[in-house]
Amino acid sequence: MIEYRNLRVALLGAGSVGSQVARLLLENRDELAQRIGAGIELAGIAVRNVDAPRDVDIPRELFTTDALGLIESADIVVELMGGIEPAREYILAAITSGADVVTGNKALLATHGPELFTAAERVGAQLYYEAAAGGAIPIIRPLRESLAGDRVERILGIVNGTTNFILDRMDTDGDTFENALAVATELGYAEADPTADIEAYDAAQKAAILASLAFHTSFPVEAVHREGITTVTAAQVESAQKAGFVVKLLAICERHTDPTTGVEGVTARVHPALVDRRHPLAAVHDAKNAVFVQAEAAGDLMFYGAGAGGLETASAVLGDLVSAARRHVAGGPGVGESTQANVPILPIGTVVTRYQITLTVADRPGVLSQIAALFSDHGVSVEAVQQSVATARGQETDARTATLVIVTHEALESALAATVESVARHDAVERVVSVLRVEGETA
Amino acid sequence: MIEYRNLRVALLGAGSVGSQVARLLLENRDELAQRIGAGIELAGIAVRNVDAPRDVDIPRELFTTDALGLIESADIVVELMGGIEPAREYILAAITSGADVVTGNKALLATHGPELFTAAERVGAQLYYEAAAGGAIPIIRPLRESLAGDRVERILGIVNGTTNFILDRMDTDGDTFENALAVATELGYAEADPTADIEAYDAAQKAAILASLAFHTSFPVEAVHREGITTVTAAQVESAQKAGFVVKLLAICERHTDPTTGVEGVTARVHPALVDRRHPLAAVHDAKNAVFVQAEAAGDLMFYGAGAGGLETASAVLGDLVSAARRHVAGGPGVGESTQANVPILPIGTVVTRYQITLTVADRPGVLSQIAALFSDHGVSVEAVQQSVATARGQETDARTATLVIVTHEALESALAATVESVARHDAVERVVSVLRVEGETA
Repeated sequence: MIEYRNLRVALLGAGSVGSQVARLLLENRDELAQRIGAGIELAGIAVRNVDAPRDVDIPRELFTTDALGLIESADIVVELMGGIEPAREYILAAITSGADVVTGNKALLATHGPELFTAAERVGAQLYYEAAAGGAIPIIRPLRESLAGDRVERILGIVNGTTNFILDRMDTDGDTFENALAVATELGYAEADPTADIEAYDAAQKAAILASLAFHTSFPVEAVHREGITTVTAAQVESAQKAGFVVKLLAICERHTDPTTGVEGVTARVHPALVDRRHPLAAVHDAKNAVFVQAEAAGDLMFYGAGAGGLETASAVLGDLVSAARRHVAGGPGVGESTQANVPILPIGTVVTRYQITLTVADRPGVLSQIAALFSDHGVSVEAVQQSVATARGQETDARTATLVIVTHEALESALAATVESVARHDAVERVVSVLRVEGETA
Repeated sequence: MIEYRNLRVALLGAGSVGSQVARLLLENRDELAQRIGAGIELAGIAVRNVDAPRDVDIPRELFTTDALGLIESADIVVELMGGIEPAREYILAAITSGADVVTGNKALLATHGPELFTAAERVGAQLYYEAAAGGAIPIIRPLRESLAGDRVERILGIVNGTTNFILDRMDTDGDTFENALAVATELGYAEADPTADIEAYDAAQKAAILASLAFHTSFPVEAVHREGITTVTAAQVESAQKAGFVVKLLAICERHTDPTTGVEGVTARVHPALVDRRHPLAAVHDAKNAVFVQAEAAGDLMFYGAGAGGLETASAVLGDLVSAARRHVAGGPGVGESTQANVPILPIGTVVTRYQITLTVADRPGVLSQIAALFSDHGVSVEAVQQSVATARGQETDARTATLVIVTHEALESALAATVESVARHDAVERVVSVLRVEGETA
């Protein structure tokens, strides 16, 4: 009996994920071969420097600097080098040469996804990217396939482990942002330059990928509204706690209607938000990730697990690799992306949300009613106001300022933003201490 | 430009799931056509009685009693009639005629899965069954594909909504089993004959399906160890609560080694178990389902959502339908099941677990040490014993029995079972009140 030939895998990159993929491919080759119905052979690993030190013991002869040469002879190309170029060039070369491609490159997908998908569709190649959002959590296949017959209404995702670690620590230990970031760096959860995480660039890329899949629409990362967590203070976290909330960095993708034009569309945004402590997302601790999905027929779903880590993410990559290999053995082209819906992307101002606004105001009569008037002027209804007089320690009679915490009912983001702007200009307002959206409440 | 022809869908069964699938197919046909890249046409619905009343408004002319005639002309057959025959016959007819098949029939898959998968593989047809376990929760694809490159070590699943509703009510409201079952029946969570749910036949079928997928091995339902929840008492639930546990019906599929033979293998079992209240599964309330997966590389994952319900389950069926249709448009055969690993199925006695045993014993000196000796005789180490004297109300001096609650360390199931047997025969033991396994602790 003639056996199916060995499938040749080219690996691009040997960082924390790539080196684990290489190790597991070598160690588990027999088990994987059984699942695939054909042998699988690591043909080589393209790196910039063949002699760089590696975390994992991999035979030196597998390394090469000739990525294009390696790609040419491969059945499946696994791109784990990250960044835009030359990753984009290599993936296009792989697709053109007829290989299937597995990638975990969220930056590339969020910026050049349509180009890659179109190239793959043209030749019947398949592009797999389970590792690009949610790390080890299987979220791409569920959205792409399991929910393909449903209508996703909203996604609320904790999709960045570093920021969840920081915010969880601030919530649990009362740490400041700076201290929590220092711990995250020390433990290896944050990189030396943490900008991509704490300014939510990473989360925004994942939001773009999730929105594209959920809404069957190309959703460019530039259209994702983005706010990081660098301005979240220990005081905010504490006052959130008292009010029954926890501060989480959420990626929110949702369908809604622009009330002024009546256009149905979608938005994606990433920002710190107040989440009710009883919501399943509130229980996501440490550097864990979770994606909460609300769909028309399926109702509420949640996917939980490790959102990062070399070994954990390697699980998602190897799952894609086995899928690609089994497709190779079965024969037939890959199934293209579903981005035909072309749902309009709406501006962030059309989103309906709630604000919690904390202000330091002059403690004099009439201020509360003047501020309240500003809200009603913008058509924003106030749900609750809490006023506390800031007294210097031991000097109870000499307080000159008060703190106002105002929680609104649901209103248009644009109206809420305009309200905050006019409140900030009011002469009795010394400082806008914090503005946070309240999310994750079921209607 | 010539468009792809409409794909013809034959629906078998119009029960709670089938009628929702029919409705959504008719209502969302344009949106689904966009995602598929071809029109999708509900060719007909095979039922036993064309004139039976339906929950949902479906044009009468779609109904037929000629299932085989309908199947013959279909590109995709959706089987939602349930039961073994004629569902098995129809699915085999569909596969033979070259159609892809979508089914939610867990009983059929758990008993005749290998026959159906082999038939499908022979002709390159694909069998989709996301709705067969976990209802709306995407768990089949994640196990089948996303984790195909990883090694699943253990699955702990709450896979039956009816029993979770009953146990959650007993935990939350202190209800008896009988009362909670009556409420479940009233609310439509339990059927008139609740045997399949409360005796865990349903959960055992799902466990067989999950074990087959997770371990790449045909796992017949007869090999699933099964205990229902009918013997769980309000007193057990209350005492579990006091000890920091909640009683859940768990489906547990795991890899382990038979200590006597050294054979590596797998087991699946379904039984009520004590779960630590801090475990993510403890927070699964009402009729919700969740599947907790521990994999070698991915670590801990959890999938949460609605485990039943006509509309919710229809989401999973439609997801499969869109996948099948897109595969049809892209061309090429389906990818077969991966059951080549043939991992040995081990007897339940080889499982390692912990027991919590509650006994009524004679309140006389020396009983505790005699009972403790029985544990050590069987090589079972005791972690904790709690003894309370049962005093009749107001008669504090006249108590004749005591209650012993013994929690063991981890031990072989066979040793634990033998211990309980010998304890039950001891003349100081009046009654074995309860025996529950403790599960879900991370090592």
